[in-house]
Amino acid sequence: MLNKSIMDGDNPDLTEERMKGTFDTDEMAAVIYGSEKLARRRREISEAISRIPELADIKPLPFLDRFEKVTEGSRKLAVIKEHVKELIDEDNYEEGLHLYHEVMGMEGHPLALHEVMFIPALVAQASDEQHKKWLGRAKRREIIGCYAQTEMGHGSNLRKLETTATYTPATQEFILHTPTETALKWWPGALGKSSNWAVVVANLITNGKNYGPHPFMVQLRDESTHIPLPEITVGDIGPKMAFNGGDNGFLGFNQFRIPRGYLLDRHAKVEADGSYVKPPHAKINHSAMIRVRSHMATGQGALLAHALVIAVRYSAVRRQGFLEDKSREVKVLDYQTQQHRLFPSIARAYAFIFCGFETIQLYDQLLIDVKNGDTSGMSDLHALTSGLKSVVTHYVGQGIEQARMACGGHGYSMASYISEIYGVAIGGCTYEGENMVMLLQLARYLVKSVEQIKTGKSMELGPMVAYLAEPDTKVDLTTGLAAYVKVFQHAARRQAWKATDKFHKLMESGQSRDIAWNNCAVELTRASRLHTRLYIMETFIRRVSSISDIAIKKVLIDLVNVHVNYEVLDIGTYALEHVSSTQLDSIRSQLYSSLDTLRPNAVSLIDSFQISDMQLRSVSTRHTDTQTDTLIQVLGRRDGHVYPNLFEWAKASPLNQTHVLPSVNQYLKSMMDKAKL
Amino acid sequence: MLNKSIMDGDNPDLTEERMKGTFDTDEMAAVIYGSEKLARRRREISEAISRIPELADIKPLPFLDRFEKVTEGSRKLAVIKEHVKELIDEDNYEEGLHLYHEVMGMEGHPLALHEVMFIPALVAQASDEQHKKWLGRAKRREIIGCYAQTEMGHGSNLRKLETTATYTPATQEFILHTPTETALKWWPGALGKSSNWAVVVANLITNGKNYGPHPFMVQLRDESTHIPLPEITVGDIGPKMAFNGGDNGFLGFNQFRIPRGYLLDRHAKVEADGSYVKPPHAKINHSAMIRVRSHMATGQGALLAHALVIAVRYSAVRRQGFLEDKSREVKVLDYQTQQHRLFPSIARAYAFIFCGFETIQLYDQLLIDVKNGDTSGMSDLHALTSGLKSVVTHYVGQGIEQARMACGGHGYSMASYISEIYGVAIGGCTYEGENMVMLLQLARYLVKSVEQIKTGKSMELGPMVAYLAEPDTKVDLTTGLAAYVKVFQHAARRQAWKATDKFHKLMESGQSRDIAWNNCAVELTRASRLHTRLYIMETFIRRVSSISDIAIKKVLIDLVNVHVNYEVLDIGTYALEHVSSTQLDSIRSQLYSSLDTLRPNAVSLIDSFQISDMQLRSVSTRHTDTQTDTLIQVLGRRDGHVYPNLFEWAKASPLNQTHVLPSVNQYLKSMMDKAKL
Repeated sequence: MLNKSIMDGDNPDLTEERMKGTFDTDEMAAVIYGSEKLARRRREISEAISRIPELADIKPLPFLDRFEKVTEGSRKLAVIKEHVKELIDEDNYEEGLHLYHEVMGMEGHPLALHEVMFIPALVAQASDEQHKKWLGRAKRREIIGCYAQTEMGHGSNLRKLETTATYTPATQEFILHTPTETALKWWPGALGKSSNWAVVVANLITNGKNYGPHPFMVQLRDESTHIPLPEITVGDIGPKMAFNGGDNGFLGFNQFRIPRGYLLDRHAKVEADGSYVKPPHAKINHSAMIRVRSHMATGQGALLAHALVIAVRYSAVRRQGFLEDKSREVKVLDYQTQQHRLFPSIARAYAFIFCGFETIQLYDQLLIDVKNGDTSGMSDLHALTSGLKSVVTHYVGQGIEQARMACGGHGYSMASYISEIYGVAIGGCTYEGENMVMLLQLARYLVKSVEQIKTGKSMELGPMVAYLAEPDTKVDLTTGLAAYVKVFQHAARRQAWKATDKFHKLMESGQSRDIAWNNCAVELTRASRLHTRLYIMETFIRRVSSISDIAIKKVLIDLVNVHVNYEVLDIGTYALEHVSSTQLDSIRSQLYSSLDTLRPNAVSLIDSFQISDMQLRSVSTRHTDTQTDTLIQVLGRRDGHVYPNLFEWAKASPLNQTHVLPSVNQYLKSMMDKAKL
Repeated sequence: MLNKSIMDGDNPDLTEERMKGTFDTDEMAAVIYGSEKLARRRREISEAISRIPELADIKPLPFLDRFEKVTEGSRKLAVIKEHVKELIDEDNYEEGLHLYHEVMGMEGHPLALHEVMFIPALVAQASDEQHKKWLGRAKRREIIGCYAQTEMGHGSNLRKLETTATYTPATQEFILHTPTETALKWWPGALGKSSNWAVVVANLITNGKNYGPHPFMVQLRDESTHIPLPEITVGDIGPKMAFNGGDNGFLGFNQFRIPRGYLLDRHAKVEADGSYVKPPHAKINHSAMIRVRSHMATGQGALLAHALVIAVRYSAVRRQGFLEDKSREVKVLDYQTQQHRLFPSIARAYAFIFCGFETIQLYDQLLIDVKNGDTSGMSDLHALTSGLKSVVTHYVGQGIEQARMACGGHGYSMASYISEIYGVAIGGCTYEGENMVMLLQLARYLVKSVEQIKTGKSMELGPMVAYLAEPDTKVDLTTGLAAYVKVFQHAARRQAWKATDKFHKLMESGQSRDIAWNNCAVELTRASRLHTRLYIMETFIRRVSSISDIAIKKVLIDLVNVHVNYEVLDIGTYALEHVSSTQLDSIRSQLYSSLDTLRPNAVSLIDSFQISDMQLRSVSTRHTDTQTDTLIQVLGRRDGHVYPNLFEWAKASPLNQTHVLPSVNQYLKSMMDKAKL
């Protein structure tokens, strides 16, 4: 069978869908994850994990409070550590990622920042000598660390951080200090209760001069008692929209002293006498940011995929209302409105994942170029990933919520788990650079590009903005995908030029650069979004064109057709020079027939993400008299047996531990009894 | 001072904003709430509540687990009962509503369905004799009830409910039974743990014939022990996206017997011998649904207002980055992108609240008409409220999330409380009629209207669809608001006709009515949205035009200008016959200048909602050595002192009860210790 998710005993409504699929889902997984090997390893790792009962969630995560979530995360970290060698190749980044996604879930855990922020910060900013001192300890997990930069009153604008590190030659120490409440470090992951060390960013002051933000290695807690050191205020910032298994924290210093050698001094140094030694080249290195944002597109695409797996499977099982056959209710997936809600998001999930992989490759190439002394691609890629991060997180959030609502009432239950996925995903609109700020960073690059063209320097444009210099030509939308790209190019080009012109005119009218920029800001963000969506569309088409397997290519072209029609409709008002009212009507018709074409492959397309029931969460160990290891999953379960498991899940939920809640006896019964008097 | 929220000791950033306001916020509140008296009573009730410490939340609600939330709700119900007479006029619906909103919050409580569903169901469906038996008991709260209709497998399609009530003449009883798991009652509010009685909807079967869904009065739990009666399975359905202070429940019957007299028989009866007596007229009475949906527009508008109060105040206090003055960071409210995120939502909040009040008035008029035998307005209003419910909930959800993101990182903390408001509001997209289903109900009415016009019966059209028959005339957008309405009418008319034509053509091509309808469904929902948004725009303009106070009218016209420019831009592609690419550009410019015009009144406009700090939640009693009654509020607080209170809030949060979490000692310390060996 082409769809590899089919098993005996499944809900026949799902099997029926899977039998309709026209392509091999294992082969599609290889396309999605970039290689047959990785796709296979993902399956093998999931399979191996499922054989270790201690790695399963002790209860459905939505039943746990924050204490229990943090505890559960810590417990699993310990179990993973025991089994890691048998489960994965530890040198393989993707295998490790998959293991953590599968076992730890997405709600955060005490080591969430240790590997992805703390150790990379040490690697990049500590000197070789400091590496010897701390890097091994960190890698062996003798210490737990985090990265503390953001403050309560200061996010995007690093120049205004308030925490100070003042050098005292007398004792050769830095004195860390939090001068105001707004200077408290706020938000760093794993800072609140887990970490005993941190890389802290503070303003380096020496010999009376402030040299701006620098990284310091700081011990926060006693290594044997874990109690915070004197003059350090540290704690958890409280419950959040999601990530409640993580202990994002606050941190304040009251004249806290650290040795001079704790300034991470790979780049800048302070001599014993307090003289400051500048880093060799002051050029900002954006590469860490580019790396994180490249991975975000793939990660966010995967979160959208999670929600779609749940919603599409459920829509093939849920029956409601009638169409032709009046003897049985139809699957809600047969409604055009349901398809319109879900299928364009399936296309986006694929597109975003493909885009993410492409930018990761561009990033890897950039690293090689930079090593060879060529930094020319840096600003191009920095701009692109800023826009991509912003556009992808926005549509992922939208798509997840639509997937949740497509599940009707049960989508609103935590048994669907989709609202948790939404909470995790939507955080991406804010962290790693707030979306509006990101769009305006890209806009700066677009405006600069248009200015280059205006001053006759088109030849200097990066490849991603070359279309900005192209002349506008007539487009015949009936000629296929290339024409859609041309329409999109026109829209993006027109908007970039229009926003730049407006910006220039406002400056000519006497406004300062900052004021004029602010007065064009919304138009500039529109230009950035169009530029990014164009890139996504082009990447999607390019990736699909490169595929040789006919069956896979066929269904991906169906998906591309959904995508381009949906996208061009959505940006119609920016391209009216090329699409008339009548043409828009006809694009709408094409969109509806593309939904229809995709319908038989909908379930196979989401099965191809090969996200295990465990990774979809709402997983539980059911305790009965005879067994304690049955997994209970709910709305998105592979086997489609939604209803009986929904009932099991509800019965196991905390409020059902007793027939009568104590609060009923305490308050409600006495209210009723009094009323009877 | 015009802005009545100014007090000594406030954050000067907020006071500065309030001083700029050009209108009296008390007078605006009177406009928002429909009368000076109600606006004043709201303030008085809030003030009186704040003087009763037992009515305050014992802790910030986000710190509580579900047990604690349900307990807190029960506790407050008891306190309210003691004080209700001194706080409000119990006969005044709005005063009661305000009291409950303020004290109970929005997360649900054990009596949430008793007053709004259970008692109205008894009133409408029980006979006079049954009223004597149960209505007094319910009103005195001797019993707690709910309304159980939806089943696990059956929502919108009532005809497919599975629960049966089979009459047995031998014992003169109905036997209630749940034949399958999907037949379990699922979702009813307050069913899980609180209610001891319920109105249950089941298929009435007598003499071998199924007469479809009928309401039955059913005792669920023993009145003295509160333990579920034998053959009844009842419990809580588990955690949800929000409303976790409420105990939505499941309910199953195993051949459970109730007396014949427990069929609520105001309309239909079953005689002792089992013969069924039809209700006098079988016409469906939509009035209960119309009432609930009318109130939803106002209630949802208020939820959007909550989020905006928080986001706009915080944006006036949060400073980040620079514009002209490089000596101090600017308020983020000065960024055009921030204004574009927030101000169109302020306009919508006003528009939705005004719309809600207008439909409530239309509903009251309808009740009078129906009493006088005129039911002609019923379908008009039913269609309107279906669309309104759907459009309003969609944009309210969107607006709340934008408000949250406008608060940056702190918006993501539960200290902002906005994600809870979002969770509560977004449920409205699904309950009381899923939005897509609602839009298609309205579409049925629109298609019928177009068909009437086509067959020369335009004279029979209801007033709300009269524009569908009007000829298209040239529009000059520079002539003011009326022209914007004309553009919108054109768009709504064009889409309604286009969708109807498509529907007819598909039927002519041989598709059955149901299949053809499904193949036009997305186009039909587009028609419904445009129709509804047109109504909202017209109502907003009409309401503002009727205002006599010059200062109030002036700022509301500014708000209308934001609204109409934003709306017409958004639906541009549906009105290309009247708006060119150049005109859209100029509407964009007008939108930006309308944001600019509104800027000085932004804070006063949201202050005018007069939502107290308590109603905004994140309220807490702070326990210090000397006092236990200081309220702690965070991001949206009236006084603008955000940062110190954010710190207090975090310090009080559950994870900070100890320096070292037990899970650290249990798992993480041993991991670190082992690594050191």
